Amino acid sequence: MTSKTIGPFRPSDVNESNASGYPEPFASEARKRHNRRLGDHAGLTAFGVVMTRVEPGGRSSQLHAHTRQDEFVYVLEGEITLHDDAGKRVMRAGECVGFPAGTGNAHSFLNEGTKDAVFLVVGNRSPDDAATYPDVDLKAETGPDGRYRFTRRDGTAY
Amino acid sequence: MTSKTIGPFRPSDVNESNASGYPEPFASEARKRHNRRLGDHAGLTAFGVVMTRVEPGGRSSQLHAHTRQDEFVYVLEGEITLHDDAGKRVMRAGECVGFPAGTGNAHSFLNEGTKDAVFLVVGNRSPDDAATYPDVDLKAETGPDGRYRFTRRDGTAY
Repeated sequence: MTSKTIGPFRPSDVNESNASGYPEPFASEARKRHNRRLGDHAGLTAFGVVMTRVEPGGRSSQLHAHTRQDEFVYVLEGEITLHDDAGKRVMRAGECVGFPAGTGNAHSFLNEGTKDAVFLVVGNRSPDDAATYPDVDLKAETGPDGRYRFTRRDGTAY
Repeated sequence: MTSKTIGPFRPSDVNESNASGYPEPFASEARKRHNRRLGDHAGLTAFGVVMTRVEPGGRSSQLHAHTRQDEFVYVLEGEITLHDDAGKRVMRAGECVGFPAGTGNAHSFLNEGTKDAVFLVVGNRSPDDAATYPDVDLKAETGPDGRYRFTRRDGTAY
């Protein structure tokens, strides 16, 4: 018998990257956010599971809200500050939060502490997902290849 | 401003249940498996995130494979034995595994140790998902309400 999965693995087996699809200046602002794409590594396509590490002073993303993507975050190590429409609250290891698609509640995770924070982020992949960014001139739409296309809010290129 | 999410929470805020949709005798065999439905608690619908605790001697489920549901498991506490087509391997806290939909690789998690094991299970919800069970006379199909309907392999009721 052969396995049709890659089998169990450790997140450290998966390449960590601070690359960002954002245009500048937002890509540079993302350099303290490091992702390991665990779901992709396992061959999953319906949703992503990303282990995100944010250095002190970094953030997970710009404040954003998805139209068709549910998101779930589970904190594994350290402390991270959730910033959303309700304000800012510190989340600690073992705490979690979910963002249902389409509510417009924009959210971001900021490391305002002195140690790295590590958390799991889960989001379903929807071919018609889009994201809005309330405090910067940015929007995201899903391209035919499933990747986000970032433009200004009026649709013009950066 | 009001939050359009319930905000951060601890898994212990969510009811834990060992209920099972399985018919007997499989439901009774599931009594050492306890679930907290974290994603549902957060209002998510596109995928489920369940914190599963398995007591020593228990198992997560019968060996099963999904046709349309990707699954991802991340071990948080203790040790759990993954049983799938490749055999059995012990997984420890911090390890993870994924099962892409449609491979037919049936899997189950067994607690063969002496302490509780706790892990996160993520699975997308697909209206046409079904599950096959290679070693018991059982199959699951998704009903119009999104819940699984369990029958014998020939479609007759238990």
